[in-house]
Amino acid sequence: MDEVTRQNREHTLFSWSVQSQANPIHMTGGQGVYFFDDTGARWLDFSSQLINLNVGHQHPKVLEAIKAQVDTLCFAGPGFATGPRAELGTKLSEVTGLAKTFFTLGGSEANENAIKMARHFTGRHKIITRYRSYHGATMGSMTASGDMRRWPVEPGMPGIVRVFDPYCYRCPFGKTPDSCGRECVSHIEEVIQMEGPQNIAAVLVEGITGSNGLLVPPDDYYPRLRALCDKYGILLITDEVMSGFGRTGTYLSTQHYGIMPDIVTCAKGLTSGYMPLGAVIVNEQIAAYFEDHMLWGGLTYSGHPVSCAAGVANLRVYEEERIFENVREQGAYLEGRLLAMRDRYACVGDVRIKGLFSVLELVRDKGSKAPLAPYGGSSPEMNALAAYLKAHRVYAYSRFNFLWVCPPLVITRAELDEGLAVYEDALAMLDRQLLGVAAD
Amino acid sequence: MDEVTRQNREHTLFSWSVQSQANPIHMTGGQGVYFFDDTGARWLDFSSQLINLNVGHQHPKVLEAIKAQVDTLCFAGPGFATGPRAELGTKLSEVTGLAKTFFTLGGSEANENAIKMARHFTGRHKIITRYRSYHGATMGSMTASGDMRRWPVEPGMPGIVRVFDPYCYRCPFGKTPDSCGRECVSHIEEVIQMEGPQNIAAVLVEGITGSNGLLVPPDDYYPRLRALCDKYGILLITDEVMSGFGRTGTYLSTQHYGIMPDIVTCAKGLTSGYMPLGAVIVNEQIAAYFEDHMLWGGLTYSGHPVSCAAGVANLRVYEEERIFENVREQGAYLEGRLLAMRDRYACVGDVRIKGLFSVLELVRDKGSKAPLAPYGGSSPEMNALAAYLKAHRVYAYSRFNFLWVCPPLVITRAELDEGLAVYEDALAMLDRQLLGVAAD
Ligand SMILES: Cc1ncc(COP(=O)(O)O)c(C=O)c1O
Ligand SMILES: Cc1ncc(COP(=O)(O)O)c(C=O)c1O
Repeated sequence: MDEVTRQNREHTLFSWSVQSQANPIHMTGGQGVYFFDDTGARWLDFSSQLINLNVGHQHPKVLEAIKAQVDTLCFAGPGFATGPRAELGTKLSEVTGLAKTFFTLGGSEANENAIKMARHFTGRHKIITRYRSYHGATMGSMTASGDMRRWPVEPGMPGIVRVFDPYCYRCPFGKTPDSCGRECVSHIEEVIQMEGPQNIAAVLVEGITGSNGLLVPPDDYYPRLRALCDKYGILLITDEVMSGFGRTGTYLSTQHYGIMPDIVTCAKGLTSGYMPLGAVIVNEQIAAYFEDHMLWGGLTYSGHPVSCAAGVANLRVYEEERIFENVREQGAYLEGRLLAMRDRYACVGDVRIKGLFSVLELVRDKGSKAPLAPYGGSSPEMNALAAYLKAHRVYAYSRFNFLWVCPPLVITRAELDEGLAVYEDALAMLDRQLLGVAAD
Repeated sequence: MDEVTRQNREHTLFSWSVQSQANPIHMTGGQGVYFFDDTGARWLDFSSQLINLNVGHQHPKVLEAIKAQVDTLCFAGPGFATGPRAELGTKLSEVTGLAKTFFTLGGSEANENAIKMARHFTGRHKIITRYRSYHGATMGSMTASGDMRRWPVEPGMPGIVRVFDPYCYRCPFGKTPDSCGRECVSHIEEVIQMEGPQNIAAVLVEGITGSNGLLVPPDDYYPRLRALCDKYGILLITDEVMSGFGRTGTYLSTQHYGIMPDIVTCAKGLTSGYMPLGAVIVNEQIAAYFEDHMLWGGLTYSGHPVSCAAGVANLRVYEEERIFENVREQGAYLEGRLLAMRDRYACVGDVRIKGLFSVLELVRDKGSKAPLAPYGGSSPEMNALAAYLKAHRVYAYSRFNFLWVCPPLVITRAELDEGLAVYEDALAMLDRQLLGVAAD
């Protein structure tokens, strides 16, 4: 362990970890899809860090824009107008079709404020969210989440009602594509009836569920959900913290499905993480409401000029370098490769992908669909998989029985091939292990 | 309204505001205690923005450090070790005497995590906080606050019990210095008894209450509170977001009183706002607990390398430019000036100051102590005061019947004099108005 790593371990706390088990890599630099550690090793980043580093490591254009803003005006309080805030606010209206943005620092605070605004705008209290969801770690966002990370903080904020997910591979309603009547939407109407439509402020869902298994909804899920919300005057809030801003090849993942949410929350890809920034973007009616009603929310660093400048530069790179085209092109190639893996390896139960947002769901065998690790847990096989990828210097995100493929959106086909080759070797190894176990 | 301001108004939302009443200044740059607007006007910043810009606007050393870090490594996920994280973590242990730091982005998230850690470490649920306090706007921190900004989100997180403040000018126990038995501490023991000591995880207090009137506690308040916490095994968490990191001439305001908290939260002055950063700093025992227990908290931008680098550079400026000495020197001068104002102006009821953290409490007359604006409200007089300062290009923080003097910690005596002259004119104007009203 080098001195920097030792000091990190000795004087700082690592998130979501038992500290004695934290085994951090000391990152010293990066370029594009690669980063470097203190031993000089080069890692292929197949997770874009926490699925946020969309333009890759150390993109020169974003770095230059940040430095220029630092020299011009590094800080202004949230009550001030600044150039970068104007530019990013205007840009976000343009690319989302919504009206106004409230800036936060991360995704958690964005969802906190979205919930607050929805409650004040509607005068209603309850918020419907989905079980397989993560909306952040602050009390409101954590309670809104379905993710097990909420358990240790319960009871949290009152007023959350949870519904099921569009998880077709393991349909909570026992349906198959043939028998499906879109119960994943229709049961929400039953819940609305039982909770009282007049009590429900919003339905809050991840655009496409990320860290709980990447659940791509059926194509008509959103049109149906939008209609349901409209029927009862309930706001539709989409959390695009992970799925938005290019990850699926569009600004908002719902743009694939032709619907407009009332409120969008975002963070991560908005700046590719170069500077901390989150945002709540609201439609015309909600913006109008706050013209003559108090917005009961704020934070010292709302609208931080350097964060906004990073956002502007990041979105400019998207346009100048035709990032969405690359996502479509590489995403199509990746989809083919992942589907081939599902056919080839016994342990790959399901593949879900939209753009460069993708996951492999791993199973003990395809027939029983028994997960390779239980919900909320791990297994020797999943640990072996993670260790294999790490040993081969591929930085990947795995959790429970899921293994993600979410590289920076600037990735080339050759770089994709490089990482996928390691993934294939790892899956082949898993298959051998599982067959060995089966033979016992 | 220039184009930038128009776009800010049209496409972004301003915190804690009725949007149609937001009247933002377009800030274009700054230097030291001054900032500039789009008309070329120069403003004297007597509020350090939101009482966070401790080293003043555009300090060249902090700007250089940020740019250097941006070039080296602009982002690493929270699971990585990085140089700036090591350096800042080590430094924070050194200056606070505590053990380990968990990094957040702002004060709200710092308090959220402090509460979570205190609950998990103690296995107890209730948190005691004070009425006149602000701990942030996310659901946990907002509910922990006593500030009226919590009203619109109630019911919030369960488990908060509120006690009274050491507000000697308006003692909630009807005491005077002669009759005082430190009921501001002793009543907390009564509350602990009635809530059950075994249920109480922590007492969470602002080091020195900031935005609720800057309440400097009596010198033996903290020793008594510390002893009370120790008696019942309750953690003492001090929120030093506003009062810490130099504002009062020390790293922690409690260092004036010779006690050690168990957990400190901070933000604002930690980087002087140049980059968003917050922190939770815990003692040895709590750090040890998390060595073999899960830390149930995290955020994408925990330990952001550029934020940590800004913190390191900011604290280096403190040392190199002997900031604490300046705070003591200018603070002593400021105290003399403010006390003279209290003697001179009928509307100045009380002066509270520690270092360069100070407030004037304004009244209709000194005898009745009738506040110049009600709790949670405004008044024509307070509006006139704010307008006067604005018209004279002094940027000041006022709320209810309070007027703060919290300039950047690099301020010189001449710059202090410049702003105080305007304050004096404004107070004289108020006195004339109040006498005029009284004469009606
Ligand atoms: C969908 C989603 N929402 C919200 C968040 C929380 O964002 P942050 O970590 O910036 O608070 C995350 C973080 O992973 C996320 O994936
Ligand atoms: C004492 C105190 N705690 C917490 C906060 C919240 O910090 P932030 O605005 O960075 O979330 C503030 C902000 O003013 C504060 O003054």
